[in-house]
Amino acid sequence: MSVAKRKTTEGNFFEDFVVGSTLVHATPRTVTEGDVAVYQSLFGNRFAVQSSAPFAATVGCARAPVDSVLVFHLVFGKTVPDVSLNAIANLGYANGRFGVPVFPGDTIRTVSDVLGVKANRDGQTGVVYVRSRGENQRGEMVCEYTRWAMVRKRNAASPAPTPVVPVLPDAVDAADLKVPFQIGDAAYDAALAGSDAAWEDYVVGERIDHVDAMTIEESEHMSAARLYQNTAKVHFNLHVERDGRFGKRIVYGGHLISLARALSVNGLANAFAVVGINGGRHVNPTFAGDTIYAWSEVLDRAELPGRDDIGALRVRTVATKDLSAAAFPDRDATGAYPSNVVLDFDYWVVMPRRRAMR
Amino acid sequence: MSVAKRKTTEGNFFEDFVVGSTLVHATPRTVTEGDVAVYQSLFGNRFAVQSSAPFAATVGCARAPVDSVLVFHLVFGKTVPDVSLNAIANLGYANGRFGVPVFPGDTIRTVSDVLGVKANRDGQTGVVYVRSRGENQRGEMVCEYTRWAMVRKRNAASPAPTPVVPVLPDAVDAADLKVPFQIGDAAYDAALAGSDAAWEDYVVGERIDHVDAMTIEESEHMSAARLYQNTAKVHFNLHVERDGRFGKRIVYGGHLISLARALSVNGLANAFAVVGINGGRHVNPTFAGDTIYAWSEVLDRAELPGRDDIGALRVRTVATKDLSAAAFPDRDATGAYPSNVVLDFDYWVVMPRRRAMR
Amino acid sequence: MSVAKRKTTEGNFFEDFVVGSTLVHATPRTVTEGDVAVYQSLFGNRFAVQSSAPFAATVGCARAPVDSVLVFHLVFGKTVPDVSLNAIANLGYANGRFGVPVFPGDTIRTVSDVLGVKANRDGQTGVVYVRSRGENQRGEMVCEYTRWAMVRKRNAASPAPTPVVPVLPDAVDAADLKVPFQIGDAAYDAALAGSDAAWEDYVVGERIDHVDAMTIEESEHMSAARLYQNTAKVHFNLHVERDGRFGKRIVYGGHLISLARALSVNGLANAFAVVGINGGRHVNPTFAGDTIYAWSEVLDRAELPGRDDIGALRVRTVATKDLSAAAFPDRDATGAYPSNVVLDFDYWVVMPRRRAMR
Repeated sequence: MSVAKRKTTEGNFFEDFVVGSTLVHATPRTVTEGDVAVYQSLFGNRFAVQSSAPFAATVGCARAPVDSVLVFHLVFGKTVPDVSLNAIANLGYANGRFGVPVFPGDTIRTVSDVLGVKANRDGQTGVVYVRSRGENQRGEMVCEYTRWAMVRKRNAASPAPTPVVPVLPDAVDAADLKVPFQIGDAAYDAALAGSDAAWEDYVVGERIDHVDAMTIEESEHMSAARLYQNTAKVHFNLHVERDGRFGKRIVYGGHLISLARALSVNGLANAFAVVGINGGRHVNPTFAGDTIYAWSEVLDRAELPGRDDIGALRVRTVATKDLSAAAFPDRDATGAYPSNVVLDFDYWVVMPRRRAMR
Repeated sequence: MSVAKRKTTEGNFFEDFVVGSTLVHATPRTVTEGDVAVYQSLFGNRFAVQSSAPFAATVGCARAPVDSVLVFHLVFGKTVPDVSLNAIANLGYANGRFGVPVFPGDTIRTVSDVLGVKANRDGQTGVVYVRSRGENQRGEMVCEYTRWAMVRKRNAASPAPTPVVPVLPDAVDAADLKVPFQIGDAAYDAALAGSDAAWEDYVVGERIDHVDAMTIEESEHMSAARLYQNTAKVHFNLHVERDGRFGKRIVYGGHLISLARALSVNGLANAFAVVGINGGRHVNPTFAGDTIYAWSEVLDRAELPGRDDIGALRVRTVATKDLSAAAFPDRDATGAYPSNVVLDFDYWVVMPRRRAMR
Repeated sequence: MSVAKRKTTEGNFFEDFVVGSTLVHATPRTVTEGDVAVYQSLFGNRFAVQSSAPFAATVGCARAPVDSVLVFHLVFGKTVPDVSLNAIANLGYANGRFGVPVFPGDTIRTVSDVLGVKANRDGQTGVVYVRSRGENQRGEMVCEYTRWAMVRKRNAASPAPTPVVPVLPDAVDAADLKVPFQIGDAAYDAALAGSDAAWEDYVVGERIDHVDAMTIEESEHMSAARLYQNTAKVHFNLHVERDGRFGKRIVYGGHLISLARALSVNGLANAFAVVGINGGRHVNPTFAGDTIYAWSEVLDRAELPGRDDIGALRVRTVATKDLSAAAFPDRDATGAYPSNVVLDFDYWVVMPRRRAMR
């Protein structure tokens, strides 16, 4: 047997990330109604715009758009083999926006720019900052965001690169949000949406317990990750994880975003699309068997330039495990989170304004 | 923080149901081929009409129709947030009919009329009767039925309303069934359907053991309920149910209807559509890990007015858990069911008559 | 109650198989994008051709074709009620080819010819050889293969039939493969496919550890089998299997083929379609909770007659459970397999030649 070229991917290590370089991620993905149905069966979403083609028409869509959180996962999934296969932790997200809506039949691909690198003092790892851009088959942006992850070095002896740390905004400016929806006067049917609370009814500082809860099964988080073609090993390999840090598989952090979003319909039923991601942290790991609750806080309420049909709400949703959200469990004064809090997610949603509702 | 309008739903309590009022249920749902595939993967259906577009053409459908039992679950699911979120028990179904077939792309919505209320003597609960009507995007009836449930009162001190109890038929009259299928002479291919038993081959009183069985997993019954947007908490929240009546999550009763229907293909392969629901009782709870068997009894065989291609069969299907159906386990002389019987479902199916088969 | 015609299927026993006869299997199946999505969520496939419509166009497909392994399962599933409901073991596959690609919307049906029968000396069982042919709605072959299974006799006293054992090729001749794909010069995008290894880069004798692994859950293998309408009881009935040979349900052997194929993308990313099956053995049973790894060996590299865009690779993929594939665990000199090896699958794939790649 002659020596052949290496065929398998080991993923990139910290040394492989060069600031200014671009990663073209593999496996473009045509999204179908089948993907939407699998996602529905995994999370039980009840936002009317994504559920019903006629309802979607009332916000200006030719058919039911694909949930933007699902779009995020599909865009993110492509980055895993190149960005985070050797990551120890996914540290955060920032500056995320959604662009043109995705409809079944559209094909998503992702490219990422390396924005920054910073070696850790332990000599074993470093932090990598990438900005990923998901595009449809026409090259239109469907989702873009910055994330940073702690990635292992291939070789502890490698010299530290010049540190480059991008400046990231605390939040996306509401004026920069893309809102590809349009509602005619009194066109949005509150009864069918399940709530008559309009954008004007939400108050900054208001907190909402989403009441409902959902227990996660192993097959569910794995099915979701496979749907997104997310290949991170810790979600799938019990044989190795049994002897790992937690003794079991770890649920993909994004699963919590989807669950929290689905639960949030009870209290935010008219927040019909996530249009921006300001930040997100997976503050404790989640495992199969955990029951997830969620509560939200309204952080900001913004008019959209030139728009009287739709307004934006900046919301922070906190997800907990095996702990009711009725008492709004949260970080303490030092910023430390209770062990039952698993997600702290800060994002923009759009809602109909009162004049657009009936 | 100012006091904001309540955003979350707590569901209706017994006091909230007013006889003669109408509930417009939220979340219209566009059914897709994706939903059909998820349903297929959960139950393993093998009725040829729903499985194959060319076969469906032989019964007069432009494409494979959505299984009417799935339609029932979608219509039912919408009613849960308004009707049974505070229900202790779903007591029964009656007078159910299916209307125009549902095809992928159709959008289903549901409205319910409150037919009756009757306070229980315990002062804590009452029985609510509603008639629900599922419609497609053209307003055509796709499924309608009456159900009654025991619903908690918000306040034990509330006065009892004047009792109104609707008169419900024991069975739908065969002449009232809608049968939107048409088969030409010798057009129905018995070999492809998997059985050469025609409508004429079934005998009133005949009992059929469906032989096969299926074990239920937690992720399966939850995925099904999420597919239907059924939000009843007992199916999803292990954290609460662990300390509840059974110490675990309870399987949605409708899951048993789907499983029993799927198992019944072995013995009723040509019963290609459920067209009516005469009654149904979930006589014992089902849990993940239970293995479901089913047997059926032919209760009636009815000609359809003016039709020589298709006949109707009134069937009662009994599902058991962890007990073979070979000995036809059933209620005893007092009407009491063995603890292993979980479902007693009385319904109408349609079958090709002999002249329509080849 | 009068005595009615038997309605349920007990499946064929050894005595029922007559050499030269043809079995028309029931339940034609229209494959949809929904089926593809469920399959995606179960196995996490990442071959670009099946994932993306625009990418599929670069190999000459009007849209993303259905994975041929899924086609195999759909074709195979139909044969179970007639061929292997009373089988003790599925002994092998041979001489398998795929024909025209299957696209969502196509309808698959299967017929099988009985090629051979041979009673076993134990008097209880015999080996049955059938050749199954899956066709689309135009009667075009989509998948054909020979398999043999050990089937129970109905009656131990039945006389042994004249033994007929078909001669089966060790491998399909590369010249007989159907390759309904066409790639223009430099049309195949290596970056989007995830690997720049062309057909020419693979060397006969080369072994590849596919690195990744996947743990199987009960709901997953059952969902897959139900998707294929595979009715073999051992996969579904815990109540019976609890007291059976292994004390639990057995995973459908084909599940391992799909998992191994999905894992093989890491090392064989450009092996974009399985086009032939030379042989396959399920050498040990697999159960939920097992973690599956895979490695492959290149057995042959064949030019395709008249083609300079695509070449064929004969690959043997070995799947293991709870054992890393890094050391290439394999049968020993006597042909015996370690207990952790579960699958030995010998098949043809097609890959772009270097000139077709960019």
